Amino acid sequence: MKIEAVDFFYLSMPVVTDAGDGSQDALVVRVAAGGMIGWGECEASPLVSIAAYVTPMSHGACKPVRDVVLGQQLETASDIARIGAAVELECMDLLQAAHTFSGIEMALWDLLGRKRQVPVYELLGYARAYPKLPYASQLFGDTPQETLAGCRSAREKGFRAVKCGWGPFGRGSLADDRDHLRAAREGLGDGGTLLIDAGQIFREDVDAAAARIAMLEDVGALWLEEPFHGGAYDAYAALAARGGKVRLAGGEASHNVHMARQLIDYGKVAYVQIDCGRIGGIGPAKLVADFAAARDVTYVNHTFTSHLALCASLQPYAGLKDHVICEYPFAPKSVAWDMSETHLLPNANGEVVLPAAPGLGITMNPGGMAAYVVDVEISVKGKVLYRTPSL
Amino acid sequence: MKIEAVDFFYLSMPVVTDAGDGSQDALVVRVAAGGMIGWGECEASPLVSIAAYVTPMSHGACKPVRDVVLGQQLETASDIARIGAAVELECMDLLQAAHTFSGIEMALWDLLGRKRQVPVYELLGYARAYPKLPYASQLFGDTPQETLAGCRSAREKGFRAVKCGWGPFGRGSLADDRDHLRAAREGLGDGGTLLIDAGQIFREDVDAAAARIAMLEDVGALWLEEPFHGGAYDAYAALAARGGKVRLAGGEASHNVHMARQLIDYGKVAYVQIDCGRIGGIGPAKLVADFAAARDVTYVNHTFTSHLALCASLQPYAGLKDHVICEYPFAPKSVAWDMSETHLLPNANGEVVLPAAPGLGITMNPGGMAAYVVDVEISVKGKVLYRTPSL
Repeated sequence: MKIEAVDFFYLSMPVVTDAGDGSQDALVVRVAAGGMIGWGECEASPLVSIAAYVTPMSHGACKPVRDVVLGQQLETASDIARIGAAVELECMDLLQAAHTFSGIEMALWDLLGRKRQVPVYELLGYARAYPKLPYASQLFGDTPQETLAGCRSAREKGFRAVKCGWGPFGRGSLADDRDHLRAAREGLGDGGTLLIDAGQIFREDVDAAAARIAMLEDVGALWLEEPFHGGAYDAYAALAARGGKVRLAGGEASHNVHMARQLIDYGKVAYVQIDCGRIGGIGPAKLVADFAAARDVTYVNHTFTSHLALCASLQPYAGLKDHVICEYPFAPKSVAWDMSETHLLPNANGEVVLPAAPGLGITMNPGGMAAYVVDVEISVKGKVLYRTPSL
Repeated sequence: MKIEAVDFFYLSMPVVTDAGDGSQDALVVRVAAGGMIGWGECEASPLVSIAAYVTPMSHGACKPVRDVVLGQQLETASDIARIGAAVELECMDLLQAAHTFSGIEMALWDLLGRKRQVPVYELLGYARAYPKLPYASQLFGDTPQETLAGCRSAREKGFRAVKCGWGPFGRGSLADDRDHLRAAREGLGDGGTLLIDAGQIFREDVDAAAARIAMLEDVGALWLEEPFHGGAYDAYAALAARGGKVRLAGGEASHNVHMARQLIDYGKVAYVQIDCGRIGGIGPAKLVADFAAARDVTYVNHTFTSHLALCASLQPYAGLKDHVICEYPFAPKSVAWDMSETHLLPNANGEVVLPAAPGLGITMNPGGMAAYVVDVEISVKGKVLYRTPSL
């Protein structure tokens, strides 16, 4: 089948705040080929990723993503890899291209799975999808009381793992951070898996991050996520070398496979977190999962948005039995929930298992999306390059 | 002074081809503060970088560049670094932000230098600007005869160094590449500095690149540039370890300081090439220059476009006497030439020296730009977020 159409839908809450909540908007991609459609989602900044699809060419290594994707043949998984490699080469100087293509690539897997009537994880070579332990991913509260309430709410809803991140963490005193960490542990209860996300707040300051290690150990945190700039491998390695029970996690910003591999080899993280909406899609993420497994590093999805993104992000490591933790959008904004008819809910064991359904295994809800569609129009030289299409 | 206005001008040749010639379009930035203006240039993909300036916020770590820059105070060099750090943090999930901010950052240096009536390199701490040896940067011809003619033309115009890149190199047989390399050397003449740019054609294939080393040595090439994907540090290091007289160069795609440092430490390049229009501007580039000098690696600018970009890209290593090679746009398209009134021409010794003039030391030509302005309009929810401003 031939890729006939790629349509982008920029969805948003009516009001977007400056909280670190990535579920406030979304860029959903619909790809049509051979009379079928597939869905994917880019992360983040919808308008910019749309622009990278339609922009005029700057030169031979700076083409719009559209020019590389439209009209391509799609019959096998290797076709998806071939198209991805072409985007890397022909959109080399267009930085945003990786984010734009990520959503398209997901949709190509969805399409191929639906055509073959198999789940994407089977196309990736996995015989089955193993259960994952979802962690309720949420922001620290403004106060320790709010942090406690958030973690307690997650526990009451059956979550045995919680991640608190961003918000005030690392921005105030050590005592402030300690109060939040103790509140999180109190809310989650003993025995639950507690994960902490620093949101890159310490940039390259190893000492500032190290000053929190003892208190993280006191509350039994499993990992400290993104203490530093995503590219500051030396800082990661220096913190990892200081030992302690708390391991490092990172990798969500990787926009190619190399970056994720390097965070493992040079940054010495114990958990590598991949966002399929940024790294170029499911295929590159699977390469990272293989690499991580070979290095005894645990692969984890990065997903703070919709269940479409969630179902895509679990495919690359669905068949890795020992890689059990998964990020689960705990309190997404309604735009992220309403865009799909089906959702991936924890089972009675509190585990998440990808459905053995064709493609990504999720049914989208164009009617549900409609209320959130943001009208966009981009014109160059008086010609409309993009106008929000019909759902 | 306060940053009052940031205006983007997308300039383009009437027709853009898929040749690897990055001078076919440009994104020029004009910043106004305290009654003065400064100029900068982003590289590449103008529409996408404009979108990253005006896009609606996705969340607190995915803001439009505009929200972080407008209204900021600009009095000292450290203000520029502060604004850059804020962009890194607050636009963390907006991949294109680094390219967008790069042009703004250049303009901030230009503004500050004009206000203080000193060249930017003085603001960076250099007492003077040393002469650089410009290499005529051009594409391989379609045939060896064209490659020979291009190199001969450069020599006749007084260039003692030439770089040939992209085009057919690495895409055909070994014999084809050998013919082009010999033609380049013949055109340049004995004794001239010959540089070869593979344009990432070998991706991660170390053997394919290594197969060209002997013929590169035969023609006395000084460096082999970007044999691989810009992030494939392992491949760079593996090729470097195979020894030989030909050294490796790379780094133009670095969109933060970390990437450039890592290409040095992990990729083992001998020449690090920085594009001030991508890495976040002149300040981050200066950090790379300092780092390179400490590691005994040679810093080189990456500039294939205008003399505005050229004058910006030479500032970060203007005062490094031993780092003498500089990339010089040899045959830019008229859009890149016409945008400035003044140009940085080689002197009687065939050397290029930054003028001891305020700011970036170049006088722009709004009238010259006018013929190339591409009208752009971006609307979201019926509201115009960007419309090409008046020159």
